[in-house]
Amino acid sequence: MTLLETVEVLNVLIVGASQGIGLEFVRQLLKDDQVGRVFATYRNAPSLELNEWLEHQPERLTLISMDITDEAQIAQGIAHIQQHTTQLHLVLYCVGVLHDGELQPEKSLQQIQPERLMRYFQVNSVGAVLLAKHITPLLKHRDRSVFASISAKVGSIGDNQLGGWYGYRASKAALNMFLRTVAIEYQRKSPNTVVVMLHPGTTNTRLSKPFQRGVPAEKLFPVERTVAQLLQVIHNLQPDHSGQFFSWDGSLLPW
Amino acid sequence: MTLLETVEVLNVLIVGASQGIGLEFVRQLLKDDQVGRVFATYRNAPSLELNEWLEHQPERLTLISMDITDEAQIAQGIAHIQQHTTQLHLVLYCVGVLHDGELQPEKSLQQIQPERLMRYFQVNSVGAVLLAKHITPLLKHRDRSVFASISAKVGSIGDNQLGGWYGYRASKAALNMFLRTVAIEYQRKSPNTVVVMLHPGTTNTRLSKPFQRGVPAEKLFPVERTVAQLLQVIHNLQPDHSGQFFSWDGSLLPW
Repeated sequence: MTLLETVEVLNVLIVGASQGIGLEFVRQLLKDDQVGRVFATYRNAPSLELNEWLEHQPERLTLISMDITDEAQIAQGIAHIQQHTTQLHLVLYCVGVLHDGELQPEKSLQQIQPERLMRYFQVNSVGAVLLAKHITPLLKHRDRSVFASISAKVGSIGDNQLGGWYGYRASKAALNMFLRTVAIEYQRKSPNTVVVMLHPGTTNTRLSKPFQRGVPAEKLFPVERTVAQLLQVIHNLQPDHSGQFFSWDGSLLPW
Repeated sequence: MTLLETVEVLNVLIVGASQGIGLEFVRQLLKDDQVGRVFATYRNAPSLELNEWLEHQPERLTLISMDITDEAQIAQGIAHIQQHTTQLHLVLYCVGVLHDGELQPEKSLQQIQPERLMRYFQVNSVGAVLLAKHITPLLKHRDRSVFASISAKVGSIGDNQLGGWYGYRASKAALNMFLRTVAIEYQRKSPNTVVVMLHPGTTNTRLSKPFQRGVPAEKLFPVERTVAQLLQVIHNLQPDHSGQFFSWDGSLLPW
């Protein structure tokens, strides 16, 4: 029996659910009979899909406003969840920025700008560890639970052969360090929680859109496939996997 | 013959030279006959030692004001060096913060504060890659050269067994990713430059002072020993070592 199969009803939190991989996690988890409540956060406004799903399952889905660059909003969002439940079993951090207007991954050192590097760290790295800081009361229960964050293979230092993308790469390496450190702390304080980082593979979302040229068709996953694969990795997790970095096919990635 | 032995006269830049390991690099390199000019940067004011050495060797030592959190100051400092020479052969990034007033390494998630995490990234990670951005004109020459940065074994994700120190750990992991990415870019644009990260071992400086309890005496290095060991590692470097993370004894560390 796998880790989350031991839990009768799964309560799930998806952070960064208004688009892309996060949104698809909401869709697939709402179809899963094992899943009880789904809490989904958005930054600006809930997407059309989230609003539509809310109409159909208002007792099961809860939408929460949360900008993860504002710690107060994280705390408020978690207080909001605590009005509905005392237990979460699956927490998915799906927030990440690769490009946004003037923010573009650097092709070379000459394109590096310190404020942009800091933005990558703030969104891709710091947000996840702030979530881990505030979420512990909801994970400390007798059931098993999983805290998983979308990371990226380009955040693997050892795997870096191509260079470029300074800010994004470093922010994902920092994310991996933060979550490995969280995994160690949780082993003492919330030992039933497994903390993992997930590489989704190149997925056909807004994030990868400008960079899909040159990606072979069979390596560009539709988001439905990516999320199905990541849910499979999550369902196969064992307690001793905490603190590891998994690829979409379940293999371990180097740091 | 090792890499830097092929260079007749070494011009050296030490960034963060007003104390600790950086200051000791200046002292030992000024005693080395192979070394020509030494450029040493300080943030606030040059230390007494730097001023004293400047009095004795004004034609060999140049002191440069540089706060690495301000990119304009990095560019100005490099313009200052270019008034004296067109070539550097050894660049040492020795800036780093572990504690500073209210900034203290976090023992647990509850102590995490986002602004402090950002400060760790700014000083320990971003400064080094900004230096790499601006220093290239001084490294692009026919001689061999080395760009080395002080990193830390607690910045190794794979080696992390104890947890804690979130911000410092993540900032050093980010530094390692930045410099591995720099190494890849330099292989194309400045192929004679070897880029490495160095773990100095726990050294008896202001940085480690509050955390020395529990460190066995034989593992707490006087700064003279640390710098002698790191210079030995640097002198043993080979061209294919670029992009690697070395410990003080010359062994490779995991990412």
